[in-house]
Amino acid sequence: MEHTQEHEACLEQTQKYCVERPIYNQEILQGQLRMKYIFFDLLMPNFFFLLCLFSCSSKKAKSHLYSFLPILKWLPRYPVKEYLLGDIISGISTGVMQLPQGLAYALLAAVPPVFGLYSSFYPVFLYTFFGTSKHISIGTFAVISMMVGGVAVRQVPDEVISVGYNSTNTTYASEYYSDRDFKRVQVAVTLALLSGIIQLCLGLLRFGFVAIYLTEPLVRGFTTAAAVHVFTSQLKYLLGVKTSRYSGPLSVVYSLVAVFSKITTTNVAALIVGLTCIVLLLIGKEINLRYKKKLPVPIPMEIIVVIIGTGVSAGMNLTESYGVDVVGNIPQGLRAPAVPEIQLIPAIFVDAIAIAIVGFSMAVSMAKIFALKHGYTIDGNQELIALGICNSVGSFFQSFSVTCSMSRSLVQESTGGKTQIAGALSSIMVLLVIVAIGYLFEPLPQTVLAAIVMVNLKGMFKQFGDIAHFWKTSKIELAIWVVAFVASLFLGLDYGLLTAVTFAMITVIYRTQSPQYRILGQIPDTDIYCDVEEYEEVKECPGIKIFQANASLYFANSESYTSALKKKVSENSCVWGGRGPTLQKYWLSFSFICLLSQSNDVEGSVKHEIANDELPVNGKSLDELEHFVEPKTNIHSLILDFTPVNFVDSVGAKTLKSIIKEYKEVSVHVCIASCSGPVMNELTRLNFFDNTVTRELLFHSIHDAVLACQVKDRSASQTASDL
Amino acid sequence: MEHTQEHEACLEQTQKYCVERPIYNQEILQGQLRMKYIFFDLLMPNFFFLLCLFSCSSKKAKSHLYSFLPILKWLPRYPVKEYLLGDIISGISTGVMQLPQGLAYALLAAVPPVFGLYSSFYPVFLYTFFGTSKHISIGTFAVISMMVGGVAVRQVPDEVISVGYNSTNTTYASEYYSDRDFKRVQVAVTLALLSGIIQLCLGLLRFGFVAIYLTEPLVRGFTTAAAVHVFTSQLKYLLGVKTSRYSGPLSVVYSLVAVFSKITTTNVAALIVGLTCIVLLLIGKEINLRYKKKLPVPIPMEIIVVIIGTGVSAGMNLTESYGVDVVGNIPQGLRAPAVPEIQLIPAIFVDAIAIAIVGFSMAVSMAKIFALKHGYTIDGNQELIALGICNSVGSFFQSFSVTCSMSRSLVQESTGGKTQIAGALSSIMVLLVIVAIGYLFEPLPQTVLAAIVMVNLKGMFKQFGDIAHFWKTSKIELAIWVVAFVASLFLGLDYGLLTAVTFAMITVIYRTQSPQYRILGQIPDTDIYCDVEEYEEVKECPGIKIFQANASLYFANSESYTSALKKKVSENSCVWGGRGPTLQKYWLSFSFICLLSQSNDVEGSVKHEIANDELPVNGKSLDELEHFVEPKTNIHSLILDFTPVNFVDSVGAKTLKSIIKEYKEVSVHVCIASCSGPVMNELTRLNFFDNTVTRELLFHSIHDAVLACQVKDRSASQTASDL
Repeated sequence: MEHTQEHEACLEQTQKYCVERPIYNQEILQGQLRMKYIFFDLLMPNFFFLLCLFSCSSKKAKSHLYSFLPILKWLPRYPVKEYLLGDIISGISTGVMQLPQGLAYALLAAVPPVFGLYSSFYPVFLYTFFGTSKHISIGTFAVISMMVGGVAVRQVPDEVISVGYNSTNTTYASEYYSDRDFKRVQVAVTLALLSGIIQLCLGLLRFGFVAIYLTEPLVRGFTTAAAVHVFTSQLKYLLGVKTSRYSGPLSVVYSLVAVFSKITTTNVAALIVGLTCIVLLLIGKEINLRYKKKLPVPIPMEIIVVIIGTGVSAGMNLTESYGVDVVGNIPQGLRAPAVPEIQLIPAIFVDAIAIAIVGFSMAVSMAKIFALKHGYTIDGNQELIALGICNSVGSFFQSFSVTCSMSRSLVQESTGGKTQIAGALSSIMVLLVIVAIGYLFEPLPQTVLAAIVMVNLKGMFKQFGDIAHFWKTSKIELAIWVVAFVASLFLGLDYGLLTAVTFAMITVIYRTQSPQYRILGQIPDTDIYCDVEEYEEVKECPGIKIFQANASLYFANSESYTSALKKKVSENSCVWGGRGPTLQKYWLSFSFICLLSQSNDVEGSVKHEIANDELPVNGKSLDELEHFVEPKTNIHSLILDFTPVNFVDSVGAKTLKSIIKEYKEVSVHVCIASCSGPVMNELTRLNFFDNTVTRELLFHSIHDAVLACQVKDRSASQTASDL
Repeated sequence: MEHTQEHEACLEQTQKYCVERPIYNQEILQGQLRMKYIFFDLLMPNFFFLLCLFSCSSKKAKSHLYSFLPILKWLPRYPVKEYLLGDIISGISTGVMQLPQGLAYALLAAVPPVFGLYSSFYPVFLYTFFGTSKHISIGTFAVISMMVGGVAVRQVPDEVISVGYNSTNTTYASEYYSDRDFKRVQVAVTLALLSGIIQLCLGLLRFGFVAIYLTEPLVRGFTTAAAVHVFTSQLKYLLGVKTSRYSGPLSVVYSLVAVFSKITTTNVAALIVGLTCIVLLLIGKEINLRYKKKLPVPIPMEIIVVIIGTGVSAGMNLTESYGVDVVGNIPQGLRAPAVPEIQLIPAIFVDAIAIAIVGFSMAVSMAKIFALKHGYTIDGNQELIALGICNSVGSFFQSFSVTCSMSRSLVQESTGGKTQIAGALSSIMVLLVIVAIGYLFEPLPQTVLAAIVMVNLKGMFKQFGDIAHFWKTSKIELAIWVVAFVASLFLGLDYGLLTAVTFAMITVIYRTQSPQYRILGQIPDTDIYCDVEEYEEVKECPGIKIFQANASLYFANSESYTSALKKKVSENSCVWGGRGPTLQKYWLSFSFICLLSQSNDVEGSVKHEIANDELPVNGKSLDELEHFVEPKTNIHSLILDFTPVNFVDSVGAKTLKSIIKEYKEVSVHVCIASCSGPVMNELTRLNFFDNTVTRELLFHSIHDAVLACQVKDRSASQTASDL
């Protein structure tokens, strides 16, 4: 072969694509190119890496410290005049939300309300020092609280200590809470420690990427299910009925059944107070939304409702007159730090992982949205470290797991919060309440808290609209959403999340495993090849079949690749798929008939004639042979388009090799087009190339392969006519 | 734009690639092509399908019957003269192997030896009618027997009934076996029923594809671990020590510890007999291998060893003189069919699934090898149905789970077996032994059976060589092998298999999730684009960056795609990655500096100068801004090569859109090249295209995109100079 180097690529004003070059197979192409001397590339980075490793300059130490404690970087440069007012307003607005939400979500976490306040102080304050996001509001969050509550109830079920959750029974003694509540607090606190340590480890190991497995449809399906869980768990507080709390699979169903079986014992006073609060809160939300631009600060409806509720309850003595359950004993001041109960760890390890990952992914997704909006970057791994410190250190002060709350973060950002100062101020507000006026909230009815929780679920329930959205855009993502929702609803949030993540991974396998198989044809007079079934102009090249599967070739799809290839190639054409040498003889006579008769119909009838004769070949009748025989026009070449192949494994390489050999037996030349560099290297490592299968079968593009096949066929037919 | 249709593709004798056509983006390309009217394609097949569904002709019924009972097809055409002799010789050879293996593998399955004989008869006979493979030998198999034994021991542990496995203690009463053995038989039989039903269901549902998840390295690692399990479990029989049998995680370790702690109680007579047998069997194997062509039939060493062993044992009265454990009570004749214990099913369901899948994949992989060698096809689903019938029907006659045995199949094929007749004959030989001379084997020492089992493991132990092989070819496949081996070894075969399958799937995710990111450059004067770091000739097009990731774009890798893109593009170039409008102003001045200074060095120093001034921009110092700033040469276009992208999900589409928008803000034009049809359809469904992101960004090939970008840049600079 001659390869005169007369390339020419011309670009003219008429916007023409115009290329003239030799036909390249990989053998020729690589022969013309010089490999880069990559010895240097391999060694030098290592060398520099070592250099860097041993040179721990003060500058580097400083940069490490800065990245670990971002406050050192931003606080000294804090523009007081410009930012402080916004941060103060935002801090107060967020603080007045932290308060009722802390109390309310403590109910969800199955611990006495004051622990919700602790959780709204310590971790929030700590985040100021370690966090990189300027706008998210760390603190109690419905989904996480629900997960914590699930574990607490599982570990310390209602049945063990049959005292109902009625704090008026207990005395204001040094031990404020019932034994059951105390144990649940221990579980919640240990869970916070463990999830914090997990987050910290993941962050230090730079494993922030684990959150990527929580794809959007998964998170939305999961949080929608969580909203249903939360709603169900709050129903009993809203109605004022006394039921046990359930956890584990089907807990939603059990809870609903329990509540509805006791619906006759509904406390009408509690229900009226609760519904009034819900209406007030919904109106408040609506006003805040509608007059967003006119209002300087959103109306803090939650705290208003709490204050009114407390006032009404205290004034009318709802507890004693109507038997409405109230928050009860909020001890003043903070509690001394204590070590969580380490022996609980084995029982709650899996839950801690789930809480750690869900908490992190909530925080980081919110943080990313704000970072994008305000033009700064957040560091995912530092966020993990920050959350880990918040949770683990907080746990020593009796706070349970926290993360970023969507509703509070939106308020913090929209009221003009500029830095982490706003979050710190909100936590200090909570602290003031704890140490000074916490006891004032003791007469607050639980139904008011339930109303606050339920109204905050509004946004999550709106996610049911996703079903219609995903139905239109992607069925696979719809499936992920539905699986995440159904599994989380019925199996519980922990197993639900696990199931959903597994399912999401299986969808990826599914996509690579069941590709679309297509026969390509040429758009006449171009080098463009498309699906023959898509456009009318596209024509198959005579004698050449171009086969494409839009996936990599590996163990899970190599079998279907082979069968699809055989099926597609045999459609309207005749290639002998005979496998054994015993059939070879028979095939020769048959293909001779094929060659003689060029039209399909004639072949069919010829084949039929033979078939009717049922002449046995080596003891096998033609009828039996039928499934190895595939009708033929006159294909001399088969091109496998490897454009979409990103990796090959040993099974794939073996499949490919057997395809090439099988078709070679029936004189069909198999080429591989557009095989990428990495795949070629993999094939080499897998010993794919030998004396029969060489790099000359690899072509740079489909068009190269087609041209080469045409040249080959022409010279072959010339030789035949010469003889 | 003008698109004169002056295409020309010339193919000359000099083997040139030569194309001249307009530059195509998808908008133009689709404008020139007519979509095929696919209404017909969609409806017609359904119509025909319905037609077919309602027309159940006698011919179709016959074909269904033939596919369900393949014997109806091949038996009437059986060429007696040519095939019968081979089948008889092969049947006898296989039969004499079935016998000792049946006895030996029954030990593995933790049931009395005679049940191994039952398992070597009923299922083997049934397979003749339903199987499509002509050469595999169905029957007892070490790995499956081991799995059955594991479940039997777990369900009926040694501790419950503390009588050792010493059959001489029991009387030859109507109930031949100890209570424990009887219960274990019940477990094994129920397991066979359940795994058979599972296989049958999978076959009827055409779910034969599940076996594809058992990729080759996985199966080899798994069977190697199984070989270690089997070897460990046989040690005590070889040494003649009495220990309990363990199951579940770490059972290998427990078994070894138990055996070695009792090593002082070794029965020397048993050990000598066992070692002698091993040596004899190894010599036999060697002779058979070396004189393969000269020997008409391989030496049936196993049966010879059994006969000698039985003779020696009976003659020297090994049982009573030396305390050697023997097979004991082999009841004559068959047992009446009985329904397995259905109430066991919930406890063994997961194990049954594992056994069903492993059994099927062993059989089908062996069957495929022979089918390929002898040029016929097997039907995977029919194989599942056949195995399912063998196991489930067999279970009513007290046989445990079976599949194809590698060693026997090789003998059956090499001794001239041509059809399923050989298998039938081998089963009839076993039947004769059961009804006539079974009791003769009662004095056979168990150590002889242990020797047979151990020697048969030779091939599987050779698979340790895989480690070196996979180390060279593929690290990922090595990882699959090692994980399958280690997990199966320590977690037990059931959980090990589950772990290995999960791991194999994760490797696929891993491959798509951490792709190689590359910047492409042009081979001068061609339309070929390669990795710039690979070849010296490859040059980047000035002002244009071509970025490629060899994976699809979806939730698990879209984040790393973005960061890799930014990193790769910023290397030796300067593109502003600013995200917020607040930064826009600052960027403009900065990019102005960049534009003025063309060389990299100058830019660097300018940037450095500014940085040293630390002038605050909107309260942020430049130092803080640094991570949004990326140094720039003068890139006007960014081309994302979508050749390797096979699917996109909503996260991927959003990522892509944000990339396009971000770069647009800094006046970098982003194009997408070689986006395949299915991906384009997905993007459309995901609402990717709007007024800013149009189909004009999609180009047919990288070269099209490059040419278009060059044209665009030239006209832009012309406009600039005109002003």
